[in-house]
Amino acid sequence: MIRFLVRVCISLTLFGALAAQAEDGYRMWLRYQPTADTQLRSQYQQQFTNIVQPGDSPTLQLAARELATGLRGITGQEIATPDTPTTGSVVFGTPESSAVIKSLELNDQLNALGDEGFVIARREYRGKPITAIAANSDVGVLYGSFHLLRLLQTQTPVDQLATQSAPAVEHRVVNHWDNLNRVVERGYAGLSLWDWGTLPAYKDNPRYKDYARINASLGINGTVINNVNADARILTDQFLEKAAALADVFRPYGIKLYLSVKFNSPMLLDGFETADPLDPKVQKWWQERVKKVYEYIPDFGGFLVKANSEGQPGPQDFNRNHADGANMLAEALEPFGGVVFWRAFVYAPEQGDRFREAYDEFMPLDGKFKDNVIVQIKNGPIDFQPREPFSPLFGSLEKTNIALELQVTQEYFGFSYHLAYQGPLFTEALNADTYAKGEGTTIGKILAGDVFDYKHTGMAAVINPGNSRNWTSHPFVQSSWYAFGRLAWDVNLTSSAIGEEWLRQTFSNDSDFIQPMQEIMAISREAGVNYRMPLGLTHLYAQGHHYGPAPWHDKSGRPDWTAYYYHQATEDGIGFDRTQSGSNAIEQYHDELTNKFTDPDTTPEDILLWFHHLGWNYQMNSGRSLWQELVHKYDTGVAQVEQMQKTWESVKDYVDAERYQRVKALLQVQLRDAKHWRDACISYFQSVNGLPLPKGSPEPAHDLEHYKRMEKELYVPDPWYPEPSGH
Amino acid sequence: MIRFLVRVCISLTLFGALAAQAEDGYRMWLRYQPTADTQLRSQYQQQFTNIVQPGDSPTLQLAARELATGLRGITGQEIATPDTPTTGSVVFGTPESSAVIKSLELNDQLNALGDEGFVIARREYRGKPITAIAANSDVGVLYGSFHLLRLLQTQTPVDQLATQSAPAVEHRVVNHWDNLNRVVERGYAGLSLWDWGTLPAYKDNPRYKDYARINASLGINGTVINNVNADARILTDQFLEKAAALADVFRPYGIKLYLSVKFNSPMLLDGFETADPLDPKVQKWWQERVKKVYEYIPDFGGFLVKANSEGQPGPQDFNRNHADGANMLAEALEPFGGVVFWRAFVYAPEQGDRFREAYDEFMPLDGKFKDNVIVQIKNGPIDFQPREPFSPLFGSLEKTNIALELQVTQEYFGFSYHLAYQGPLFTEALNADTYAKGEGTTIGKILAGDVFDYKHTGMAAVINPGNSRNWTSHPFVQSSWYAFGRLAWDVNLTSSAIGEEWLRQTFSNDSDFIQPMQEIMAISREAGVNYRMPLGLTHLYAQGHHYGPAPWHDKSGRPDWTAYYYHQATEDGIGFDRTQSGSNAIEQYHDELTNKFTDPDTTPEDILLWFHHLGWNYQMNSGRSLWQELVHKYDTGVAQVEQMQKTWESVKDYVDAERYQRVKALLQVQLRDAKHWRDACISYFQSVNGLPLPKGSPEPAHDLEHYKRMEKELYVPDPWYPEPSGH
Repeated sequence: MIRFLVRVCISLTLFGALAAQAEDGYRMWLRYQPTADTQLRSQYQQQFTNIVQPGDSPTLQLAARELATGLRGITGQEIATPDTPTTGSVVFGTPESSAVIKSLELNDQLNALGDEGFVIARREYRGKPITAIAANSDVGVLYGSFHLLRLLQTQTPVDQLATQSAPAVEHRVVNHWDNLNRVVERGYAGLSLWDWGTLPAYKDNPRYKDYARINASLGINGTVINNVNADARILTDQFLEKAAALADVFRPYGIKLYLSVKFNSPMLLDGFETADPLDPKVQKWWQERVKKVYEYIPDFGGFLVKANSEGQPGPQDFNRNHADGANMLAEALEPFGGVVFWRAFVYAPEQGDRFREAYDEFMPLDGKFKDNVIVQIKNGPIDFQPREPFSPLFGSLEKTNIALELQVTQEYFGFSYHLAYQGPLFTEALNADTYAKGEGTTIGKILAGDVFDYKHTGMAAVINPGNSRNWTSHPFVQSSWYAFGRLAWDVNLTSSAIGEEWLRQTFSNDSDFIQPMQEIMAISREAGVNYRMPLGLTHLYAQGHHYGPAPWHDKSGRPDWTAYYYHQATEDGIGFDRTQSGSNAIEQYHDELTNKFTDPDTTPEDILLWFHHLGWNYQMNSGRSLWQELVHKYDTGVAQVEQMQKTWESVKDYVDAERYQRVKALLQVQLRDAKHWRDACISYFQSVNGLPLPKGSPEPAHDLEHYKRMEKELYVPDPWYPEPSGH
Repeated sequence: MIRFLVRVCISLTLFGALAAQAEDGYRMWLRYQPTADTQLRSQYQQQFTNIVQPGDSPTLQLAARELATGLRGITGQEIATPDTPTTGSVVFGTPESSAVIKSLELNDQLNALGDEGFVIARREYRGKPITAIAANSDVGVLYGSFHLLRLLQTQTPVDQLATQSAPAVEHRVVNHWDNLNRVVERGYAGLSLWDWGTLPAYKDNPRYKDYARINASLGINGTVINNVNADARILTDQFLEKAAALADVFRPYGIKLYLSVKFNSPMLLDGFETADPLDPKVQKWWQERVKKVYEYIPDFGGFLVKANSEGQPGPQDFNRNHADGANMLAEALEPFGGVVFWRAFVYAPEQGDRFREAYDEFMPLDGKFKDNVIVQIKNGPIDFQPREPFSPLFGSLEKTNIALELQVTQEYFGFSYHLAYQGPLFTEALNADTYAKGEGTTIGKILAGDVFDYKHTGMAAVINPGNSRNWTSHPFVQSSWYAFGRLAWDVNLTSSAIGEEWLRQTFSNDSDFIQPMQEIMAISREAGVNYRMPLGLTHLYAQGHHYGPAPWHDKSGRPDWTAYYYHQATEDGIGFDRTQSGSNAIEQYHDELTNKFTDPDTTPEDILLWFHHLGWNYQMNSGRSLWQELVHKYDTGVAQVEQMQKTWESVKDYVDAERYQRVKALLQVQLRDAKHWRDACISYFQSVNGLPLPKGSPEPAHDLEHYKRMEKELYVPDPWYPEPSGH
């Protein structure tokens, strides 16, 4: 009785400790709360009572710690660490590191799982039921450990835990656009995580370790820590020493460190008069600099390069091409196993249709890049707009390794003020059919290496978290980070399945919470499209910061930095003709799509105005005119935000007060902004087409002049963007 | 037995919850940990079992919540909330709000305590021992509640709790130099706390409430939320609405909101051609704008103004003087009870000795300011240097209200990387004897209103916290914020007593911790003086960011922006002659000090070179030459940091791992910087005087050219300061 009471006391103490942890979002989806379903918790308590750690490698120690912490939280009871397995053991390791794992003879499964895959198996060991996590490498074991905890956090029945999994995409990398002064370009969650002034001394900063855990829990295996608009100083000893400290923290989590580099670094750092990639002195400079980097970071991942794009230096400055530039760096990195991610985000002002440029510039170079170069391509041909057709480079670059670049930070989705789960956008991109080898040649398949003979593949996400307590400021931006990681591991996951995983781990498993919330996860991205740029409109943003609307914007240093360039709205119609009668960008796709996009009637309505300039009275599938459909979409966007508000209020009882209040307030901001977008754009387009609003659609709250004024006056919450002058 | 065990279980649950709260510094000195001394905890558990709240005012509700939380944490047991007092009650309120308080007949004490003072009394109520917290206002009750909790957190014996206290200084205000884009000028702890983009919707942000608690716990009753280098937009509806939301959060904590305003706002906001304070249209503009502010914030505190200083606009632009400018604003604020804090931080480039300027500019205006103007004066005549003699304006402005401005953010003390508790600097300023009315006319006495017939007095601290988890980034910057608040309440507190309070509440009451740590609290400021600018040297900083050394700096847009201007080191000697043979700044002091500073032999050595240009062989009290003493001081500074490191390591067992590791790493950075300062300055001065180092003093690690190069190359961790170009 006393013993029972003592155990109850210990449990209560534990429970108190766990329950008291503030729900401030810091723990992301790794909250390890006690299983709410009491019957299931009871089963978990029987099945997961201890962990048996095989060896002392840093990675296995991390796996052990994560399992102990996670299981303790989930079961609400202490987790023992015996030397040999008993009933309820979780045994983990590789056949090399663990005799027990070896004895389970999982080699048939392991052989197919590569370096990073894992098996979770339910077995008996000497008659005792155990759970085994096995892999071919310690990092695979770590991934398997996180996956087991994911299964438990999402209340998976014990008899459904057995699984095996290996990642689809080789390089699963997050990108940070962090400047060295800690301001984050397109970052809306505080200052950079990297506290440079305290590195390398303070590498034990809990933020770094938790950052690594968060990424490792998704199987992310690389991070580029500095802005692609790079600062050459990153390659100096001063900063390499600091970066090396971060690399040390990340290494046991299986995360390699990469750096963005500035192409003319030899000129900036050592006074060279050229950065010509074919100049032997320049080549030697890079070889020596790369060698220095590897002295600091022996398993350094490589470089990410933005060159000849938006003013960044590059090989074209020296009359060379992208392959020349990339290959020079690749050659320097090759002896050390490093790679070059070379970005295809290029659009020179004089080139005509910006849509076409990356393809026109890179296709002639297909097959000319070295094996350790990976061309990193944004999902769409313009720049992370709320909806873009996929970049024609996908399915066209056949002899060049590629990576897909996605955006988690909400540069075009309302910064950290709007709820806009990106799962639907990411899966839309992965499921896009390029028709490169007939129907079904999706981008996901290509990235999984199933279509072309790529030596490397990759997926990258610009995450730009910051020192906000919850990493992302808006709690729901976390869901997009989560979705990216899950998709890089398994390109076939659905947006809703990922969304549900995230909701369960981050908030609650209660179906009365999950079901309504799935609605929010399903519509929030589309709402953002609808109240900004429906039917394939794009880039109606106020220039520079991209927060609010400025569809009236028609003057800039470059035509393709005006909204008018993109929408071309006139009295007669709207949209960008990219068919043969226009820029013919559609020829860049494979024939099936070229044909499909040639005719407005066969072009999907959600990308219609990407490809066609149509009259305002063009008839849509709904029977409405184009103008009426446009207004309908704008109204739908606003209504969807109102719906999200109602849904969020309906689940109040399932959410802690702090996060409930925060999201509720943010939805108010989002509704205000959605209405502002809708009203501003509709006012403007009306001023162009002179048409009345459809019946039932409310008049904008103000006149067009008001919205034009607001473009200048409304506060834009971006520490990176230069403040307006004259204040 | 069962009941006993149940209570033990509840206690354990509570204990688990409390113990599990991470020691990440977020809770500052309001941790409310269970009393470590078990005997004392037992007494507290008997004496503090419940709280009796008298009324429902927002402020009393906050007091109740704080007492409940605090007592629960300190005693480790649940705190009941009965309607009537019993044994162990804490009864709190005003005689008006609480019949119990009224019945205790504390009026004799209360009558002397003003609006904000409080009494803590141990009494019997109907034969039951209770603790009473009484005041004349609800805010006084709140202050008393925080003070009781302070007493308990510092393990005050029960029989020593009775006390009464009223604040010495009327306006106890914190200043933030936060820009509207959230970058904080001279802020080293993240982005601004004010998340403008989410205001006014998200005013329930826990940060705002905890910010208010932190300040209220010290008795701070005002906050200026935006940069003195002001942005005129703060006075637009858009931002007033946001500021009003913050004011709503702060109000029940007794904290008034103030705003920094730009003097030429009528020109910037409404296209006026002048901001002449004597122009009736300009006056009317301000009257209307002030009226608008009070519509948003009925108890708005007033304005803080930086005018005709470092390029900011001001009355002198229109051939008016400071009084003209301040009075115009004061007149507009007067009907609403607002005040103007008008900063005396002025130094025009052509004026000669910068030291003299504020005095020369403001003394002729003494008595010309309206009653609701308060001239806010930095402690020293230059700018928050590690040691400055006090500003001669103190004790000289007899007919003008004044406030003392201090700096908590470590602009000149190593940002958030160095440990430099400012208690010694603050008390040095408050204890400075102005001799205005004979010996003992300290600045503290003046600010307490005991010397001149001021209508208002104030103390202000530039705190510049940020969104770092622990508010200040370096954990020990918290101690300076704490010291400021305590001194504004009681100017007679000693630095070490305050330091001990802070250590006890923030870390541990264990004397094996306190005693060694007192050493650190005593020397850290002086170490910062010693390894930078001993013996009254000043402003040897690298220009602009003020992080590292550049004593060689002798060219700038203005002479008083060079280090040479301040140290004037030549082959023959060093220091600034401010006696009659020089700028005669010493005449600005009262005679006793003028006389004292006239002769180097009677000038305190720690400010010697503030006032005298002396030969390198000038003999110091120690018998060393000036040069030898200077080197000795530099060496002492480095040795003091090494001592701080050892001391910190010696108390490892008393500190949680997270904060221990962080401070340990920061001390490594500080030692590196201290050596760098010492080596750079000594190299430079040696290059000027050609003298050898004293025996036993180590040669600098590098040559002077190295340190000059490092001025450009060493990374400066400041998001606000413009990054070096060409990278």
